[in-house]
Amino acid sequence: MPDNIRFDIDRDVRIGLPEAVFCEGKSHDALLSLLKRFASDDEKPILFTRLSESVWARVPKDLRAAYDYDPLSRTAWHRTCPRHETGLASIVSAGTADAFVTHEVARTLEYLGWTVRLFEDCGVAGLWRIQAARDDINKGDVVVVCAGLDAALASVMGGLTSKPVFAVPTSVGYGIAEGGRAALSSCLASCAPGVAVMNIDNGYGAACAAARVLTLLESVRAAR
Amino acid sequence: MPDNIRFDIDRDVRIGLPEAVFCEGKSHDALLSLLKRFASDDEKPILFTRLSESVWARVPKDLRAAYDYDPLSRTAWHRTCPRHETGLASIVSAGTADAFVTHEVARTLEYLGWTVRLFEDCGVAGLWRIQAARDDINKGDVVVVCAGLDAALASVMGGLTSKPVFAVPTSVGYGIAEGGRAALSSCLASCAPGVAVMNIDNGYGAACAAARVLTLLESVRAAR
Amino acid sequence: MPDNIRFDIDRDVRIGLPEAVFCEGKSHDALLSLLKRFASDDEKPILFTRLSESVWARVPKDLRAAYDYDPLSRTAWHRTCPRHETGLASIVSAGTADAFVTHEVARTLEYLGWTVRLFEDCGVAGLWRIQAARDDINKGDVVVVCAGLDAALASVMGGLTSKPVFAVPTSVGYGIAEGGRAALSSCLASCAPGVAVMNIDNGYGAACAAARVLTLLESVRAAR
Amino acid sequence: MPDNIRFDIDRDVRIGLPEAVFCEGKSHDALLSLLKRFASDDEKPILFTRLSESVWARVPKDLRAAYDYDPLSRTAWHRTCPRHETGLASIVSAGTADAFVTHEVARTLEYLGWTVRLFEDCGVAGLWRIQAARDDINKGDVVVVCAGLDAALASVMGGLTSKPVFAVPTSVGYGIAEGGRAALSSCLASCAPGVAVMNIDNGYGAACAAARVLTLLESVRAAR
Amino acid sequence: MPDNIRFDIDRDVRIGLPEAVFCEGKSHDALLSLLKRFASDDEKPILFTRLSESVWARVPKDLRAAYDYDPLSRTAWHRTCPRHETGLASIVSAGTADAFVTHEVARTLEYLGWTVRLFEDCGVAGLWRIQAARDDINKGDVVVVCAGLDAALASVMGGLTSKPVFAVPTSVGYGIAEGGRAALSSCLASCAPGVAVMNIDNGYGAACAAARVLTLLESVRAAR
Amino acid sequence: MPDNIRFDIDRDVRIGLPEAVFCEGKSHDALLSLLKRFASDDEKPILFTRLSESVWARVPKDLRAAYDYDPLSRTAWHRTCPRHETGLASIVSAGTADAFVTHEVARTLEYLGWTVRLFEDCGVAGLWRIQAARDDINKGDVVVVCAGLDAALASVMGGLTSKPVFAVPTSVGYGIAEGGRAALSSCLASCAPGVAVMNIDNGYGAACAAARVLTLLESVRAAR
Amino acid sequence: MPDNIRFDIDRDVRIGLPEAVFCEGKSHDALLSLLKRFASDDEKPILFTRLSESVWARVPKDLRAAYDYDPLSRTAWHRTCPRHETGLASIVSAGTADAFVTHEVARTLEYLGWTVRLFEDCGVAGLWRIQAARDDINKGDVVVVCAGLDAALASVMGGLTSKPVFAVPTSVGYGIAEGGRAALSSCLASCAPGVAVMNIDNGYGAACAAARVLTLLESVRAAR
Amino acid sequence: MPDNIRFDIDRDVRIGLPEAVFCEGKSHDALLSLLKRFASDDEKPILFTRLSESVWARVPKDLRAAYDYDPLSRTAWHRTCPRHETGLASIVSAGTADAFVTHEVARTLEYLGWTVRLFEDCGVAGLWRIQAARDDINKGDVVVVCAGLDAALASVMGGLTSKPVFAVPTSVGYGIAEGGRAALSSCLASCAPGVAVMNIDNGYGAACAAARVLTLLESVRAAR
Repeated sequence: MPDNIRFDIDRDVRIGLPEAVFCEGKSHDALLSLLKRFASDDEKPILFTRLSESVWARVPKDLRAAYDYDPLSRTAWHRTCPRHETGLASIVSAGTADAFVTHEVARTLEYLGWTVRLFEDCGVAGLWRIQAARDDINKGDVVVVCAGLDAALASVMGGLTSKPVFAVPTSVGYGIAEGGRAALSSCLASCAPGVAVMNIDNGYGAACAAARVLTLLESVRAAR
Repeated sequence: MPDNIRFDIDRDVRIGLPEAVFCEGKSHDALLSLLKRFASDDEKPILFTRLSESVWARVPKDLRAAYDYDPLSRTAWHRTCPRHETGLASIVSAGTADAFVTHEVARTLEYLGWTVRLFEDCGVAGLWRIQAARDDINKGDVVVVCAGLDAALASVMGGLTSKPVFAVPTSVGYGIAEGGRAALSSCLASCAPGVAVMNIDNGYGAACAAARVLTLLESVRAAR
Repeated sequence: MPDNIRFDIDRDVRIGLPEAVFCEGKSHDALLSLLKRFASDDEKPILFTRLSESVWARVPKDLRAAYDYDPLSRTAWHRTCPRHETGLASIVSAGTADAFVTHEVARTLEYLGWTVRLFEDCGVAGLWRIQAARDDINKGDVVVVCAGLDAALASVMGGLTSKPVFAVPTSVGYGIAEGGRAALSSCLASCAPGVAVMNIDNGYGAACAAARVLTLLESVRAAR
Repeated sequence: MPDNIRFDIDRDVRIGLPEAVFCEGKSHDALLSLLKRFASDDEKPILFTRLSESVWARVPKDLRAAYDYDPLSRTAWHRTCPRHETGLASIVSAGTADAFVTHEVARTLEYLGWTVRLFEDCGVAGLWRIQAARDDINKGDVVVVCAGLDAALASVMGGLTSKPVFAVPTSVGYGIAEGGRAALSSCLASCAPGVAVMNIDNGYGAACAAARVLTLLESVRAAR
Repeated sequence: MPDNIRFDIDRDVRIGLPEAVFCEGKSHDALLSLLKRFASDDEKPILFTRLSESVWARVPKDLRAAYDYDPLSRTAWHRTCPRHETGLASIVSAGTADAFVTHEVARTLEYLGWTVRLFEDCGVAGLWRIQAARDDINKGDVVVVCAGLDAALASVMGGLTSKPVFAVPTSVGYGIAEGGRAALSSCLASCAPGVAVMNIDNGYGAACAAARVLTLLESVRAAR
Repeated sequence: MPDNIRFDIDRDVRIGLPEAVFCEGKSHDALLSLLKRFASDDEKPILFTRLSESVWARVPKDLRAAYDYDPLSRTAWHRTCPRHETGLASIVSAGTADAFVTHEVARTLEYLGWTVRLFEDCGVAGLWRIQAARDDINKGDVVVVCAGLDAALASVMGGLTSKPVFAVPTSVGYGIAEGGRAALSSCLASCAPGVAVMNIDNGYGAACAAARVLTLLESVRAAR
Repeated sequence: MPDNIRFDIDRDVRIGLPEAVFCEGKSHDALLSLLKRFASDDEKPILFTRLSESVWARVPKDLRAAYDYDPLSRTAWHRTCPRHETGLASIVSAGTADAFVTHEVARTLEYLGWTVRLFEDCGVAGLWRIQAARDDINKGDVVVVCAGLDAALASVMGGLTSKPVFAVPTSVGYGIAEGGRAALSSCLASCAPGVAVMNIDNGYGAACAAARVLTLLESVRAAR
Repeated sequence: MPDNIRFDIDRDVRIGLPEAVFCEGKSHDALLSLLKRFASDDEKPILFTRLSESVWARVPKDLRAAYDYDPLSRTAWHRTCPRHETGLASIVSAGTADAFVTHEVARTLEYLGWTVRLFEDCGVAGLWRIQAARDDINKGDVVVVCAGLDAALASVMGGLTSKPVFAVPTSVGYGIAEGGRAALSSCLASCAPGVAVMNIDNGYGAACAAARVLTLLESVRAAR
């Protein structure tokens, strides 16, 4: 491992979330060295995010074999954190184009040991879709909403649930919506009270925010 | 009237819309001179917009008596255009804070002789409100939507009607939504197809856009 | 078809516009699965938009044979909606560089069954061009204007017609105009009353907005 | 009460949060009518937010007497929601200039019946301040961070707690930081995982986000 | 005169333009001291710009008497530069709301000794206005265009004249056009070749740019 | 030639500048058809701009042989406009990285028949460079300044010459200066009076602006 | 003193700079309580910044008498830090309109015990001004440059001195330069190497940056 | 060497920093000609920056052999400036992704003859990292901080040292942080006093700023 990396080794103790490796912008050598280190069983679990398919294709085959890689979410792990017995996150998306974010949320939560349920393609232009799914969504302890363009789904969802809601604006869109700025400002300006917002495309962060709530909830359940 | 004004006198012939006076930024003297000119019966009808209550209060009482002034929409007229027998516009708003725009739309259309019906306070955080009003809204020939903050109502409305939809983002909001930028980008990025957008707070423009459709429709009806 | 897609199947009933597939950002597998599904005669008509030539080249030849594909507008369909007997849209553009948008408007309207007439390269730097075309443009029921750079054509056109006008700012330009922001703000700030605006390059949306008007008009004509 | 207001009366049932009145931009007459309606004991509790001292001073004295008004947080209520027996929110701020937001968070949570503890003036330029308070802050179930300028406190706090963290960028600052844009982008780009963000100065929203977690937690505790 | 001012005394020799005093942001004391200094006949001519009516009203009456002050253009001078025998500038504006800029251009050029002719209220929404004035405008040696909102007039004018064109976007507008940003980007992105642009509301600068051309022209005429 | 092109054939009569072809964004087929049309001697002269080396390489060899192509300025012509006997433009640049713009100015002016003189690499960080060149620069009738980054050269040059000055901000820079925005705002905010500004990288436009002045000057000289 | 203030009492030990009170946005009561506390001789010295004349006028006369207040720089102190025997800062400004920042730099450095020398009104439009002052400026150990509009002075100064240079963009300007954004981006994009930049109008910060250098220098001088 | 280059040959005498070659945007021919010129021993030392690995690979092998090239920092030199006996710079970074900037700072300072010490991966999400390194960092005469995302490290570091601090926001980040804008505004708005800021990714500039301080310090030490 490059010797200029100071791994935040006690992060899971301190904030309940193990460190992750954000792969974008890392040199291929640095990435390989990290993948090698965390490929063995005795290492702590670690999550690789933003690991694109083209970069993954350049990783030696035997090293790839040691990992569970998912191209849609661009995530990889050697092994996951221990599975929690309770705690359910509902993940709702506006369209299939948001899937790269929606599945980053799902995979990160799964890696952290939580159970998720996906509700994709529920954009409000066809309002019946979110309404049909509403009761099932509300069975989750927390709700994560992924939406690009106008991200109107975040506000509508915020008015249909009493659960904590984390909105992830996605970079899906063009023109004024390019890069997710319209979706971001729409989420932040939401007319529904208590919708909390993550950076554009930050599925990993939304999963961590949801995990903070699920961990807290589990600690209360455990105290029973 | 100041002699540097070139009134676009044949505008109604050319584009079907009589000229209006945008009062903001005009000097008080220029405004008074215009109010005087259009106070008599034999002048063409003209609409004064963005005529704030404080400015209106400084107009001499007898001149004020010649006008129908509405402080909420900040509009005034001496007399309206001839009333049309058909043509109905539905005007929908997200909240009561949008009323200064909503009523500018309504008053402008009324001045142009069209019939309007208002549906205020239908924001999507309480989705039942727009759904309860949906059938009545759809009785209109065109739909104008006024919304600030995230303007999610524009997208939801666009998915609930087949009629022409004109969205007016309003400057209602603060932080990232200040000045209506979040609402504007949200409307433009709408996931509902065929929602057309006006400048922030441009209720007058939305009324003109709606009037263009209603006039076209009337010409077809008249051809029967 | 991927099972996470919730097709908005009754959209044409609800808002008079059949669903379309926005191809940008979709995975090639998802796209192929959709192209396969809609290649047979008994499926509802559907429009594929933003389907670039390089992506289309990767589609198997026999599947391509089932579609009418146009590289300039980047659209494809298996069959169109039924042809309407009345209803004409004038589509005006500032320059030939706007053609990828101009033709998206035209092809979408043709797919929806409406008749269009194009007036390209009418930018205002040579004012005689728009003036020469004016009378023919005004024969349309609605006018769509596509323009990049300063988009001054939208304002000039708005002052030359009484018909509903939908302006589409295009991303043609560089420097301050890069990505279409200058054209967008220019259209929204138009000094001509009642010019309604779409997102940058949103030819599909402009066609839908125009179709909403044409559909309404047809319903009145049909009632005769 | 103005008849164009559609109160979202079942909001507390649907999303667990009673409706609030955002006073900015409301006409004085509309505000008075609302204050009158909710001044009597048999009305549901309601929270007035963004009720500035200068507006409050124009409310008749006897009406003011019916309310608990706090000028710093600019909030008023007639009576609060029932007090919860468990549930503690830690509210941390960077400086005393953030107090108008910090106290909006506190007052809103108190109105909703939750217990809060404030930790003000903990900006990271003097790092010992947040470190000295860390253990006490972590006794809360959720943590709300209010910070303007660079909002570096949000990231530092996010690395010092495992609890759900809601960051509220404040409009405190000038130059590049004017209006809170620097603080907002800093919070959204936080290097600490799982920090969720509200709109600038949106203390009310942060309180609602925190309340969503506290309510969920209480439901689990109640199930014991 | 405050001793921290280093007057650029040889500026007229160096660049052909005498120094001017930009009054906005100057303390009243500094302004008074400057007005006193330049009130006597033996001082060089100097132009005061951005001298608002409210500030002017606070200047002692006898000092005011020494100056020619114009409230619309917010300019004042004790005496002008010597009058030139040739050289004519055409100043064209889109609307009467642009007059505070249009007249700043005119007064600055008059102060510099040049002859101007104004063509106000020629906005392109009524295209006949600019076309009717075209031949007279082209009699000027240079053309200055002042326009807010979409500033489409700058492009149209650029296509109607072979003379040097200087466009001044004005801050007239609201929403997306607030502060003149839409007008500025529209002018810079002009589809007409060779339209040069000044800062928003910079009528003084446009006059100086025009004067640079007129001075050059005069030197050639003088060489005959 | 594609039949959707309306060439502005009398543009040189109307505004003194022949039409040019902006090649970026044009399809290769459209470009080839234009190159073919203007390759013969009897056609009017025309200028091709933004014709990149990689696009040029795809043009058939014999067609290329008919043109004078310059890769640095990305311009091509078959033959130029007639040479003028008088009229000199000084073109000044801040650095060699600005050369793609500097030479677009130079080549366009040469194509129009004017004489130019280049002063490259005169950035103000080494102030002696612009000072050493000052007297020679001032021999030109007009001065064009090309500068990226902070574009401080535009202001400094504006204070060293009485000639008309046209500033072209270039897209040279990174970070806050990326795309030329810092240079553009710096030029527009210039503290030197009468500096007129073009869009970022718009060397063609600056040449046209300069040509408008040179043409005017020539008409006066001719009148002698 | 309000009990929610955690004074950073050992800041001078830790970073060599005593705490200062930023008065903008503080309530008048909080301000008075602070002014009272620091009015006595035995308190540590403290600096009040952004203390506007109108706020100061509302402070009781006897309390005002205890302070040295300067309206231009908007600063006040009871007593200064001990005077240093060496260390000189040169403060250069582009215009007199920048004085509110220039003098904030000067007063802060004086309060910290350092000697300053001011060079005001040295804007580059009249280049001889900065050149005449150059040798005297270079006698300072550090150079602070205050400039609004295009802030070209920062780059020019950076090329004329080997000393550490801190640039403070000021909010002087309008249009594109409004609020100091043009000046800020210009300073950051400076073509002169090693020019470090502060937030807009942050004279206090520039003084602290200069003081960090002067303190370091003094420690070396003391070690002799 | 291209003859349009005016090398600022006495820059080291004037500002104490020899000229450097910014390679981005230079043509390959121009670059080769410069590399050839400075490859011989008798030329002054010169630094090549932003020399990417892919460009370097196209340089002839024997020319490459004459240089010390580092791909991470993208810098090359033939020989360095003379080594200074005193003067130490501490370079601190938030993460390994910032290394391309961190090492540009380090390499530039080494080229200038100064000693550096690196402290990488000290981001504040794991606060113990910067605290553990604090004492060693403070042994440096100046501190350079490189950080992307929220750049909270700049503020925290500013509160932990009395030394001059130069912050370099990096372009590391996505969404709202894309291109380094969030980091830049965060650094400029820093709550720690006297933190001076460079343009995004401007490691070379930060090194020059640090060198200005070190040079000054050395001159004082030499005077002993």
